[in-house]
Amino acid sequence: MRGQYRALWLDSDGNLEVLDQRLLPFEKKSITITNTQETIEAISNMTVRGAGVIGDVGAFGVYLASRECGGDMELLARLAKDIGESRPTAVNLIWAVDRMMRVAQSSQNLVEDLKNEAIAISDEDCKRTEEIARYGADIIEDIMRQRGLDSFNILTHCNAGWLAVIDSGTALAPIYEAHRRGVDIHVWVDETRPRNQGANLTAWELSQERIPHTVIADNTGGHLMQHSMVDMVITGADRVARSGDSANKIGTYLKALSAKDNNIPFFIALPASTFDWDIVDGVRDIPIEMRDEDEVKFMRGVGSSGEVEEFRVVQDISPAINYGFDVTPARLISGLITERGVCDANIESIEQMFGDLI
Amino acid sequence: MRGQYRALWLDSDGNLEVLDQRLLPFEKKSITITNTQETIEAISNMTVRGAGVIGDVGAFGVYLASRECGGDMELLARLAKDIGESRPTAVNLIWAVDRMMRVAQSSQNLVEDLKNEAIAISDEDCKRTEEIARYGADIIEDIMRQRGLDSFNILTHCNAGWLAVIDSGTALAPIYEAHRRGVDIHVWVDETRPRNQGANLTAWELSQERIPHTVIADNTGGHLMQHSMVDMVITGADRVARSGDSANKIGTYLKALSAKDNNIPFFIALPASTFDWDIVDGVRDIPIEMRDEDEVKFMRGVGSSGEVEEFRVVQDISPAINYGFDVTPARLISGLITERGVCDANIESIEQMFGDLI
Repeated sequence: MRGQYRALWLDSDGNLEVLDQRLLPFEKKSITITNTQETIEAISNMTVRGAGVIGDVGAFGVYLASRECGGDMELLARLAKDIGESRPTAVNLIWAVDRMMRVAQSSQNLVEDLKNEAIAISDEDCKRTEEIARYGADIIEDIMRQRGLDSFNILTHCNAGWLAVIDSGTALAPIYEAHRRGVDIHVWVDETRPRNQGANLTAWELSQERIPHTVIADNTGGHLMQHSMVDMVITGADRVARSGDSANKIGTYLKALSAKDNNIPFFIALPASTFDWDIVDGVRDIPIEMRDEDEVKFMRGVGSSGEVEEFRVVQDISPAINYGFDVTPARLISGLITERGVCDANIESIEQMFGDLI
Repeated sequence: MRGQYRALWLDSDGNLEVLDQRLLPFEKKSITITNTQETIEAISNMTVRGAGVIGDVGAFGVYLASRECGGDMELLARLAKDIGESRPTAVNLIWAVDRMMRVAQSSQNLVEDLKNEAIAISDEDCKRTEEIARYGADIIEDIMRQRGLDSFNILTHCNAGWLAVIDSGTALAPIYEAHRRGVDIHVWVDETRPRNQGANLTAWELSQERIPHTVIADNTGGHLMQHSMVDMVITGADRVARSGDSANKIGTYLKALSAKDNNIPFFIALPASTFDWDIVDGVRDIPIEMRDEDEVKFMRGVGSSGEVEEFRVVQDISPAINYGFDVTPARLISGLITERGVCDANIESIEQMFGDLI
């Protein structure tokens, strides 16, 4: 899926290498993460981002922490807690860190066992995305058959490709699979302000795979949907409540409203690790990260210098506010595409499919 | 209202001076428009923009054209037609050009009469905004009374201030008036990609008037509305159908959907010249301008050079698409704030209030 690049890998010294997602698509550079502090920085400054990859990096971070703590389990627990809190909305991070700590508690060979568990977590993520790809592509083909379409326009928000969830993503996985099956597919890529993960990452991933796509301002999707230019919306999620209420990148809710208003299927693609079984009312209870206003006031791009740099796009004296996510109520969601199949976005269907995990 | 700046004025040679809105807020510079070609360029490249100001500049453009045509009325009609077609969505432009040509047809003193008519059009615009300000501020105070609020959060999209409609705007006019009346008001300013008229122009206007405001990515409004952080939405419009369907800057429809979903009043502010009496179904029939993809792929900002420059934010190989407007169906609009008062967004109420103009 990922051509010549990978989102993360271990180097020969057992350090974690990650692709610096802040520089894409203009520069391809990896950075090396060797300890807890660097793990936390890479997650919080968004060198790495995306629900799954945050979880994977968090898992590897606990392994790196074990190298620092010389068998001191209290210290390890403290470092793991710090990693788990490095971003508040994505639940995969907490899930992965908790799983690592369960292994740590019964381990005889701490560093080695944690390294293997982190590898296992990311390998499992990889397999899950293959299942999500298959179930999602089936839905695409179903809709095409039902509506007699010979081409398909899909809209996505933010990046839920292999840069977000290795090895082929969540929202993008069905698109990659449909493309492999020969479906004539075209993707509307929401720019996704303020950090432009759509324009920077999704467009780059799709161009690497030679999948036809068009970048649009986030404001554009409603107009396209009103004029029958969108056949389906798929996004990923950072945390999904037991009810199906889904937190994803800020602006997802607006696209879900528009899809509903125009009778367009709106799906969320996620692995089961994205569910938060403790939350029912997602709009009220999922914590929404607030990030630095400078992410709104400055943008990265390439200017006359030819280098990637930050540009001021909001005057200094105007404040800005920067919520990272919003929550789409389950009533606006046509279904959840998971590694176990597709289920309705309501408490009964979710409990029926995932009861063993709750 | 406008402090030390104006959107447009005549210089001592009878040429039109306009504030170059592409450079704000980082540079304040005016340019001189002397003829038809320069008028068309200034409108189409968005040196000037905003429904009212486009109409005013179009009117002054017909006067400038009359200086070129030496009394040749056929040539004048051709030049006026070119001006009227320089942007397709805003109906005020066509309205203003038509009104100028009616004066031209019965004029004995062409250049002088057209100059006076253009001045009259912009003076009338100015008076209309005062009425819109008054009716709009009354609504704000009504809502505050009904809901027992002692402060008020209003969200706006794009720029419909005095840079868009002299002398105090449409959507911003009620905000300015409420502020003058002592209302504790705060404005959420949608950045308004791709051309950032919210971040660049609305935030600048509000800071000039010392009105508290916060710039947000266009994706953010839905979350704010879900969490009771928005008490009202007001936007301007570029063309309003007889039914109340309203074309405004792309993305307005998404905010209207979100306002409806959260029971928040959503108003459009407009002078009667923004109605298009020939169109009933606005979503189907209002022409939507498609602009150059480079407006999505490049942004203006200030980088390390300290100068305003264009920088690339979308990789070269990904195409982009750039619709300038979308249409908000009347069913999502709480009311239309006009110079004659507030009317419901439906054909009966509109015809009742404006029957004499149809």
